[in-house]
Amino acid sequence: MDSKLFGSCLDAVRNAAPLVHCITNYVTVNDCANALLAVGASPIMSDEPEDVEDITSICSALDINIGTLHTRSIEAMERACARATSLEHPIALDPVGAGGSRLRSDTARMILERFHPACVRGNMSEIKALAGVAASTRGVDACPADAVDEGSLADAASFVAACARRWSSVVVVTGAIDVASDGERTFAVRNGVALMGKVTGTGCMLSALIPAFLAAGDDDLISCVAATSLMGAAGEAARARMAGQDGTGSFHTYLIDALSTMDGEALARACRIEAL
Amino acid sequence: MDSKLFGSCLDAVRNAAPLVHCITNYVTVNDCANALLAVGASPIMSDEPEDVEDITSICSALDINIGTLHTRSIEAMERACARATSLEHPIALDPVGAGGSRLRSDTARMILERFHPACVRGNMSEIKALAGVAASTRGVDACPADAVDEGSLADAASFVAACARRWSSVVVVTGAIDVASDGERTFAVRNGVALMGKVTGTGCMLSALIPAFLAAGDDDLISCVAATSLMGAAGEAARARMAGQDGTGSFHTYLIDALSTMDGEALARACRIEAL
Amino acid sequence: MDSKLFGSCLDAVRNAAPLVHCITNYVTVNDCANALLAVGASPIMSDEPEDVEDITSICSALDINIGTLHTRSIEAMERACARATSLEHPIALDPVGAGGSRLRSDTARMILERFHPACVRGNMSEIKALAGVAASTRGVDACPADAVDEGSLADAASFVAACARRWSSVVVVTGAIDVASDGERTFAVRNGVALMGKVTGTGCMLSALIPAFLAAGDDDLISCVAATSLMGAAGEAARARMAGQDGTGSFHTYLIDALSTMDGEALARACRIEAL
Repeated sequence: MDSKLFGSCLDAVRNAAPLVHCITNYVTVNDCANALLAVGASPIMSDEPEDVEDITSICSALDINIGTLHTRSIEAMERACARATSLEHPIALDPVGAGGSRLRSDTARMILERFHPACVRGNMSEIKALAGVAASTRGVDACPADAVDEGSLADAASFVAACARRWSSVVVVTGAIDVASDGERTFAVRNGVALMGKVTGTGCMLSALIPAFLAAGDDDLISCVAATSLMGAAGEAARARMAGQDGTGSFHTYLIDALSTMDGEALARACRIEAL
Repeated sequence: MDSKLFGSCLDAVRNAAPLVHCITNYVTVNDCANALLAVGASPIMSDEPEDVEDITSICSALDINIGTLHTRSIEAMERACARATSLEHPIALDPVGAGGSRLRSDTARMILERFHPACVRGNMSEIKALAGVAASTRGVDACPADAVDEGSLADAASFVAACARRWSSVVVVTGAIDVASDGERTFAVRNGVALMGKVTGTGCMLSALIPAFLAAGDDDLISCVAATSLMGAAGEAARARMAGQDGTGSFHTYLIDALSTMDGEALARACRIEAL
Repeated sequence: MDSKLFGSCLDAVRNAAPLVHCITNYVTVNDCANALLAVGASPIMSDEPEDVEDITSICSALDINIGTLHTRSIEAMERACARATSLEHPIALDPVGAGGSRLRSDTARMILERFHPACVRGNMSEIKALAGVAASTRGVDACPADAVDEGSLADAASFVAACARRWSSVVVVTGAIDVASDGERTFAVRNGVALMGKVTGTGCMLSALIPAFLAAGDDDLISCVAATSLMGAAGEAARARMAGQDGTGSFHTYLIDALSTMDGEALARACRIEAL
C-alpha cells in the first residue's frame, strides 16, 4: 500500500477546505470545531430542527454524533440527514454510548437504517451494540473484553467487514488497533497511543474529521483510513512531545497542535496502515 | 489527622475507575469530563429526560450541577436523582448561581429536599442562598462579604456544620479557605490559589470529582475533603509552574496536568487539612 | 488619537469587574467565559427563558450570540433583551452565521429591530446579510470576496458607517482589518493575525468582551474599538510566542494568556488604531 495515498487525502482536505455541519455533543464540540479548523476544513454547528436544513445545504458533509442527544436534536438529526441525503452529501455517524441506553441505541439504529451513513465510527462496544451482538458497555468507553489487539485482530476484522457489508457503510472501529472496512477491503491502523483515552473527545474529533475527508476524497474507505491514521499519528506526536510536569492537559493541547501542523508528507511518513 | 488517609482516597478512585453520570452546564462540561478522566474515573454526560435513567443505571455516582439549567434538564435531574436514589448511588449537588435567580434557588432546594444528596458543594453565597440566609449574590461567584478567611473561619465552620446537620449531607464550601462538614466533624482545607477563580469551572470540576470520590470511598466526609484538597493542590502545582508569559490559559492546562499526574502519595504530601 | 484612551478602557473593565450575562453558543462558550475572566470581568451563562430575566437583572451587560440558537434560546434572548433594555444595560449582538440560514438571519434582525443593541459585531458576510445586501456565506466565516484589506477599506468604512447610522448601533466588522463605526466616527483597527481564524471562537470572545467594555466605559465606540484592538493585540502576542511544534492548540492557550496578562499600558503600546 502506498502511504502517499493516505497523505494525499490530508492535502486534499486542506485544498478543498470543506464546510462540515456537525450535530454533536456539547462535551467535546469545541475540540471537534478546532480539529476541523486544524486540518483546513471549516465547522458549523447547528442542532435546531428549524435551522439544520439550511445549514446542511451550505455545507459539503454532515457529522452526526449522538452524545448528549436530546429529543429536539434527534429531530434535527433526521432533518439534516434527509437533506444531506437528497444533496448526496456524505454522512458520518458516531454512535456515542450506543448500548448504554435504549434512546441512544434506537437513535443510532434509526440513523443507520434510514440514512445509510457513508461511515460509522465507534469503539467496539458501540459497534457491537449497533449490530445487535450481545455487548456490555462502559458508558462511552469500550469494555476491556472488546479490546482489539493482535490476538483478536482477525476476528475483529471479520466482524467489522460483516457490519460494513450489512450496512453498506465504511465501518471504523477504534481501539488499541483501529480496524476499518468497506466490506470488501479491510485495513488495520496501528497509529495512536493509550493516552488518547484519557482526554475526552479524541473519538468525537475523528468522527468530525471523517466527513471532511469524505467530502474531499473520492474513495470513502481510503479517506476514512487516512483520517483515522492522522488522528492516531497526531496522538503519537503529542505523546512524544510530553516532558516534565506535562499531563493530559498539555497532551490535549499538543494533539490539536499536531493536527494543525501535519501535512500529507508527514502523514505519509507517520501512518502505520496494513491491508488485511 | 493522618494525611495518608486523604491520599488513599485518590488511589481508591484510580483503582475503582468509577463511571460518573454528569448533568452539568455546557460552559465547563469539557473540563469536568477531563478532570474525571485525569483522576482515573470515567464521565458520561446526559441531560435528556428519556435518556438519563438508563445512563444513571450503568454508572456509580451522579453529579448534578445547575449551571445553564433548563426546564428539560431539570426534569432530567429529577429522573436521574430518583433512579440514583433507588440504586443507592451517591449524588453530589452543585447549586451554581443559587440566589441569583428564583429558578436556580428553587431547583437546588428541590434536589436538596427530595433527594438528600450525599454532598452539596458551593461557594458561601450559594450555600447561604440555599439555607435561606439573607445573601447577596455576584452571579456564580461568592460575594466579597461572604469570603472565608482566618477571621471568619470559626463562624463559617459553625454555619457549614449546621447546614450539614439540617440537610443530612456533607456540605463543602469552597473559598480562600475551604470548609467541609458532615454535621459532626468539620475540616478546614487550606489548599488552593486565588488564580483558580480566574478560570471558569474549577468549582464545577471539584463537584464532578466528588461523586467519583464518594463512589470509591467509604467515609463520605473524608472522601469530599480529599477531593477538595486535591483540587486545591492541583491549583498550587499549576500556579508554581507558571513562568514567562503564562497567564490563565496556561494555568488552566497545568491544572488538568496536575490532576492527571498526582497520586495518593503526592496528595498526602500536599494536603493542608485541619480538623476543627 | 491618544492610544492611552484605549488602554484606559481595559483598566476600566479590570476596575469595574462587570458581571456579563451571555446567551451564547455551546461551541465557544468556555472560551467566552475565560476571556471575560481574563480581563477582570465575570461571566454568567443562562439561556432558559424562565431564568434569564433574573440573571440579566443581576448583571451589567448582555451578550447575545446566535450561534447554535434554538427555539427556546431565541425566546430567552427576547426576554433577556427586554429586561436589559428596561434596565438600560448595554446589549451586544453577534449574528453568527446570519445569511447562512433563514432562522439565523431572522433572529438577528429581530434582535436588531426590537432591541437596538449598543453594538453589533460580525464578519463582513454576516453584517451584509443583516443589512439585506446580497451576500454569499461560508458558514460562520466571511467569504473571501468580503475580505477587508487596504484596497477595500474605504468602501468597507462607508458601508459600516451606514449600517451604524441605520441601526443606531456601534457596528464592528472584524477581518484582516477591523472597522468600527458609530455612524459619525469610524476607526480602522490593524491588530490581529490570520491564525485567529484557525481557532474557533475568537470572534465570539470579542463579542463577549464588548459588553464588558460597554458597561465599564462611557463612550460606546471607543469602548468597542478598545476591545477589538485588545483581541487583536492578544492574537499578536500569542503568535509571537509560538515556537517549535506549537500549532493552533498552543496558540489558543497563549491567546487567553495574553488577554489575562495585558494591562492598559500594554494595550496602549500595542494598539494600531486609525481614525478614518
